Amino acid sequence: MRLTADEAIARLQAHDHGVLCTVHAERGIDAVPAVYTADDRTVSIPVDRIKAKSSIHLQRVRNLEADPRATLLIEHWNRDDWSQLWWVRAHLRWNGPASNDSTDAAAARLAEHFPQYRNRPFAAILELHITTTTGWSADD
Amino acid sequence: MRLTADEAIARLQAHDHGVLCTVHAERGIDAVPAVYTADDRTVSIPVDRIKAKSSIHLQRVRNLEADPRATLLIEHWNRDDWSQLWWVRAHLRWNGPASNDSTDAAAARLAEHFPQYRNRPFAAILELHITTTTGWSADD
Repeated sequence: MRLTADEAIARLQAHDHGVLCTVHAERGIDAVPAVYTADDRTVSIPVDRIKAKSSIHLQRVRNLEADPRATLLIEHWNRDDWSQLWWVRAHLRWNGPASNDSTDAAAARLAEHFPQYRNRPFAAILELHITTTTGWSADD
Repeated sequence: MRLTADEAIARLQAHDHGVLCTVHAERGIDAVPAVYTADDRTVSIPVDRIKAKSSIHLQRVRNLEADPRATLLIEHWNRDDWSQLWWVRAHLRWNGPASNDSTDAAAARLAEHFPQYRNRPFAAILELHITTTTGWSADD
């Protein structure tokens, strides 16, 4: 069954890992795993400092500069019990680099979720505005 | 580090669950979880019989009819140990409905991976041609 918009947003905020999709002009859709934090309007995704040196990871930023639309999918997968499955998809829009205050707040939330970021600070944070959410759960 | 094309294909074939992305003309990218089987040229994705009644699941087929490009991302996520992370992305192209023989072979492979499909046959199988693969592993 479909999730309501409120349920979809609640699950998005409770989670912190998904797949980020951006548009590549030639090959179509680029999808990469991403950790994130979300409030009810914005998804914040870190760009790792180590990865920032690698073209494979910077590509997501180049894609957003050319086409600001992105999608984040989160899901609960259970190989054996499909009655437990659910997913939430957020359609997103990038409005360019975030302010320092906003980046600092997102950084603090990320460090709460992921101890890794206390020792390995990220290079930047992508802030993406949530335009719509869709969700589905196998559990009626 | 980047995976070679051979390593990426090998991991794609060894796995059977990922995120399928297709292009929606207005909202951009639609992403949904998907189970699949793959050989070195084709990814086969079932459309569930139950889900086939729901517009949320048929949308992926309508998207492919309008734009045949798709992307499948598979990943290994480990919340605590990021040295274990890896992912593979396959860029795909849909060439329209598959032959009966091809569908039967994919159906048999899917039923091997997922006992659920022995009791709950799918409505159809999407066969998508692999155009390129990209992969990354944290493990150097």
